[in-house]
Amino acid sequence: MLIVMDHSAQDCDVEQVKLAVREMGLRPEPIPGSERTAIGVLGNQGYIDDATIRNLSGVREVIHVSKPYKLVSRDFHPQPTVVRVGAVCIGDGHAPVMMAGPCSVESDVQMMASAEAVKQAGAQILRGGAFKPRTGPHSFQGMGVDGLKLLRQAGDAVQMPVVTEVMRIGQLDDVCRYADLLQIGARNMQNFDLLKEVGKLDFPVLLKRGMSATIEEFLAAAEYILAEGNSQVILCERGIRTFERATRNTLDLSVVPLVRQLSHLPIIVDPSHATGVRSLVPVMAKSALVAGAHGLMVEVHHDPARALCDGAQSLDGADFKQLMAELDGLHRYLDSAAMKTIA
Amino acid sequence: MLIVMDHSAQDCDVEQVKLAVREMGLRPEPIPGSERTAIGVLGNQGYIDDATIRNLSGVREVIHVSKPYKLVSRDFHPQPTVVRVGAVCIGDGHAPVMMAGPCSVESDVQMMASAEAVKQAGAQILRGGAFKPRTGPHSFQGMGVDGLKLLRQAGDAVQMPVVTEVMRIGQLDDVCRYADLLQIGARNMQNFDLLKEVGKLDFPVLLKRGMSATIEEFLAAAEYILAEGNSQVILCERGIRTFERATRNTLDLSVVPLVRQLSHLPIIVDPSHATGVRSLVPVMAKSALVAGAHGLMVEVHHDPARALCDGAQSLDGADFKQLMAELDGLHRYLDSAAMKTIA
Amino acid sequence: MLIVMDHSAQDCDVEQVKLAVREMGLRPEPIPGSERTAIGVLGNQGYIDDATIRNLSGVREVIHVSKPYKLVSRDFHPQPTVVRVGAVCIGDGHAPVMMAGPCSVESDVQMMASAEAVKQAGAQILRGGAFKPRTGPHSFQGMGVDGLKLLRQAGDAVQMPVVTEVMRIGQLDDVCRYADLLQIGARNMQNFDLLKEVGKLDFPVLLKRGMSATIEEFLAAAEYILAEGNSQVILCERGIRTFERATRNTLDLSVVPLVRQLSHLPIIVDPSHATGVRSLVPVMAKSALVAGAHGLMVEVHHDPARALCDGAQSLDGADFKQLMAELDGLHRYLDSAAMKTIA
Amino acid sequence: MLIVMDHSAQDCDVEQVKLAVREMGLRPEPIPGSERTAIGVLGNQGYIDDATIRNLSGVREVIHVSKPYKLVSRDFHPQPTVVRVGAVCIGDGHAPVMMAGPCSVESDVQMMASAEAVKQAGAQILRGGAFKPRTGPHSFQGMGVDGLKLLRQAGDAVQMPVVTEVMRIGQLDDVCRYADLLQIGARNMQNFDLLKEVGKLDFPVLLKRGMSATIEEFLAAAEYILAEGNSQVILCERGIRTFERATRNTLDLSVVPLVRQLSHLPIIVDPSHATGVRSLVPVMAKSALVAGAHGLMVEVHHDPARALCDGAQSLDGADFKQLMAELDGLHRYLDSAAMKTIA
Repeated sequence: MLIVMDHSAQDCDVEQVKLAVREMGLRPEPIPGSERTAIGVLGNQGYIDDATIRNLSGVREVIHVSKPYKLVSRDFHPQPTVVRVGAVCIGDGHAPVMMAGPCSVESDVQMMASAEAVKQAGAQILRGGAFKPRTGPHSFQGMGVDGLKLLRQAGDAVQMPVVTEVMRIGQLDDVCRYADLLQIGARNMQNFDLLKEVGKLDFPVLLKRGMSATIEEFLAAAEYILAEGNSQVILCERGIRTFERATRNTLDLSVVPLVRQLSHLPIIVDPSHATGVRSLVPVMAKSALVAGAHGLMVEVHHDPARALCDGAQSLDGADFKQLMAELDGLHRYLDSAAMKTIA
Repeated sequence: MLIVMDHSAQDCDVEQVKLAVREMGLRPEPIPGSERTAIGVLGNQGYIDDATIRNLSGVREVIHVSKPYKLVSRDFHPQPTVVRVGAVCIGDGHAPVMMAGPCSVESDVQMMASAEAVKQAGAQILRGGAFKPRTGPHSFQGMGVDGLKLLRQAGDAVQMPVVTEVMRIGQLDDVCRYADLLQIGARNMQNFDLLKEVGKLDFPVLLKRGMSATIEEFLAAAEYILAEGNSQVILCERGIRTFERATRNTLDLSVVPLVRQLSHLPIIVDPSHATGVRSLVPVMAKSALVAGAHGLMVEVHHDPARALCDGAQSLDGADFKQLMAELDGLHRYLDSAAMKTIA
Repeated sequence: MLIVMDHSAQDCDVEQVKLAVREMGLRPEPIPGSERTAIGVLGNQGYIDDATIRNLSGVREVIHVSKPYKLVSRDFHPQPTVVRVGAVCIGDGHAPVMMAGPCSVESDVQMMASAEAVKQAGAQILRGGAFKPRTGPHSFQGMGVDGLKLLRQAGDAVQMPVVTEVMRIGQLDDVCRYADLLQIGARNMQNFDLLKEVGKLDFPVLLKRGMSATIEEFLAAAEYILAEGNSQVILCERGIRTFERATRNTLDLSVVPLVRQLSHLPIIVDPSHATGVRSLVPVMAKSALVAGAHGLMVEVHHDPARALCDGAQSLDGADFKQLMAELDGLHRYLDSAAMKTIA
Repeated sequence: MLIVMDHSAQDCDVEQVKLAVREMGLRPEPIPGSERTAIGVLGNQGYIDDATIRNLSGVREVIHVSKPYKLVSRDFHPQPTVVRVGAVCIGDGHAPVMMAGPCSVESDVQMMASAEAVKQAGAQILRGGAFKPRTGPHSFQGMGVDGLKLLRQAGDAVQMPVVTEVMRIGQLDDVCRYADLLQIGARNMQNFDLLKEVGKLDFPVLLKRGMSATIEEFLAAAEYILAEGNSQVILCERGIRTFERATRNTLDLSVVPLVRQLSHLPIIVDPSHATGVRSLVPVMAKSALVAGAHGLMVEVHHDPARALCDGAQSLDGADFKQLMAELDGLHRYLDSAAMKTIA
């Protein structure tokens, strides 16, 4: 922590600050400058609250150097984490993993048809939402536990592990019974109680970035899960909210190489929610691969025109098959070329 | 809903769209233009999913006219709602209500001292957090149920109703036992399961705007509560996230008169979280009053320099007393002047 | 400047950084911590480029303490600046000044009618755009020099100084001939060449905040004008761009007390462009007054329904008169109450 | 244009609106719905001002269907535009073009060394800034005309066309004398007078997206240039401003396939300014290629640690050579694979 004093701060102000720092069990180190004094704070073991300092007379600014996360940081844990979901491995040293399926489970027929389409195209993990977060209460809210069962059935039929969203602590038992990977959605990225409960499980978790979460907050959210003992966390970029409205969100692809530098956790990309526009999904999926994503999550529906949810951003089976073929070729090219400048 | 066709759309594309609209049980009304055709959709009773349409050939854009909320809308419910918390009334026709107290409950002594300070200054509702949402897991997380009890004790001692945040469904029983007003925090504005549970209660709710929520999403979140039967909802503007970092958030005061036009629910303002800077709180509190806020929520700590949380934005007792005096004078002036152009 | 090293940085990395700092003519001051080393940089006279440092091995982050402005800073220039426009004074110690008039000059009749309306209501400065920045080239672009003449005529007729926007250096001569206050619009806030030219004049300037400008950038833009010798600068908050679209922009009122703390320059507020909604203008105008604005700029048109530009946010003469009466009462109340917590 | 009436609007309100539409020379087409009436507006040849309408009693919302651009639209001009800069072609059907060089021209030696480095690595166009837009006036502002001459010399020596930024109309003659491609920077994207002047030239233009410009505004800015007769415009995505601060800006790569759908103009990407972090530049450059960019603009300095500007985001010669080799391989792979789902 660095405390910056006002140009006009008095010596007694500086002494007050030094005293307050010592009361926190830390060591103040004044750095007198030509225009103002700054005071370095030494001895802290991590992120500290600055309230006691910020209030003192003559203090202009308090700058944090430590981050609100440590367990997820590559600085303290250089080895990459590989997360297993069934027999599928996600992380460094493994080929990018495709998670695909419909936005929401709608029926036996729809789920089975979609599962077969994504299996046949080569996806490794099946997705499908049983509990759906919707902006308004009058929209379709998902099939609930019945949806979980249909998802499981479809996964078993095509021999794929399944991922689905959990929205509340009370759903954890059910979701863990039927799914192989728990998804925490963007709106729940800072549902800290849910994160803590999930952290107590021995179960892989897919954590989506909140729509207005900084990378620092995103990693601090993952820290909640790791702090409880569960380090099987996969991060997922799914677009952030900006002033631009031509796309549903703004896909922040730079976060992929950046997270790979800052953290040891794997990161995947969801181009369907990020763009919200079907024709942009394949292009951005391939861009994400080149950006270094450890996997992708793509919405696929056997009949998008009749989807109850997010049909406008879903690929149909044929488009998805074409995309998978292209992704496969691209991955093999990138692998063979051994590009040095990939993150 | 309005469907805008491409400049180059064919007649058969238009026919397809009309067919799809009819399949949804709605009525298409083509509006042929000089450059392109648009198709109005009639007969819907509210917000409708556009997936089936958006996918069709020749469709360029789908524009929604209906909003994802109706029960909270003034359009359908012109009478203003007044929410009662204990003996305190919040809403049109009542003087602005001050909710004040520390960010978090820290101890018996702190809570009692703060309660006396805010009571003496004239506040009507006592605040204090027992469950605290914090960015990182290594920060103080609140005292939990013990905090609730201390808050209740303090409230009883100074004879004020109390408001506190609930973060998960499992806490609802405890919070309802000890509090008079349930707060849903910004990070939980779209925790839809929590909203639904709260909607089933006969208990007043303070719903804070999410940090990246549009007004439409804010009102749709309130709709979740009303849709379950609970209409005792107070909205709270607490700043939105923008590119600006000189303040913690950007206080969006225009939302106050706008919400008053769009909805019948009362709206209050929290200048403490919005600005994050103590010296800005009193000024923005007064601006909020003039903007038409039905109340304010302000952080007050008897000794901010030793607060465990948010000390930098907390007023001390003396500053708060001064602010209350100024707010009182300002309110009486506004009332007497009967300003016509106030929202 | 503070240089934060990686957790894993070597001693030789630290030595490299110290060497580089010394080569810049500055003094490095290492602050060894328990987890990482930071290096304070002393001796700089202002903002410095960090490129040489940021590149070195082991450097994690470079934190700036100095700001990119100094002349506009209250830290170095505690006396408030009062700007004179004709006989009107804007700044501390003077009553808030109202600038009002149509968005654009459209005709002799329109300009004269609008001028009379605002004069009669009590405004002090007449506004009117002759050169109009419009998103697309097919919208009305303003009357140009003919518009300037009509504005001047109207100002002379009602004995008010006039303010108008200048968009390019080549227009400066004309605008200075006909106007009393030069406006630099939001889109030109970082048109640095225009700022420099305006800085060489002995002429008051109204500088609008760019729609995505931080306060730091806003003040740095003003610094361009002051650095050339012209300190007659009035700042103007007019809303920033955020994700919210219910209003045209998001009015950032907290910037008013904040700028008053950081700078000695006066600051006014334009609620018309900030909200873009006529019914919100009067409320936000009053809120801005309470926030400490030294003045207001409001769009008034004698017949908004026929305005060529921004009619939807313009008040008509009667509404404006009502607003002026309310603002006057409010100002007199605030003045008499001598509110201590006003910025 | 679609006019949406209030739920409570009266018949006479609807009649007023219809009258107003007819007065504008357009045709109103009422669409009575179960909850409210909407009125389609027919007969307009493009974007129209809505001021006259928005003001009328009972009007709730005015929705624009037409866009503020037409000449840049692929809807009206399906053939892709290829822009020539010297012997280099940029656009569909041509290999991606690399523009590279230092942020700013600093000296004869630096410019020549950088030019040789980028030429040798295979770049086609040399960049270098002579006029530099800087946030504060106390930073290095560029060498001006002397810089232009050094840029030209270096370009001639290595036989590459050169691109450089023009900041004001008064610099156009000089810049056109020494450069082959005019760059309009992000801060000048809505400097409409500059756009108009550039539109009168027969000279290729590189238009950078403003940091808070929507795609619609970006294309409307290009429309200003085309409307004056110059259609040799290359668009450039360089990151937008969001709440995220870990990167300098947020690279919005989805804009690449989207602009390719909406417009016939070529679009390139500048990953250096978008990320501001050297280690992210190569990865994002390759992602941009896969996203469908017609070219890239990358900052390269022969000695970044001593760059006067933006050294932290500049590649050195060796890194750039490596990047060019990887981009070349990637392009050849993409070309041979004939990916159908590339935009």
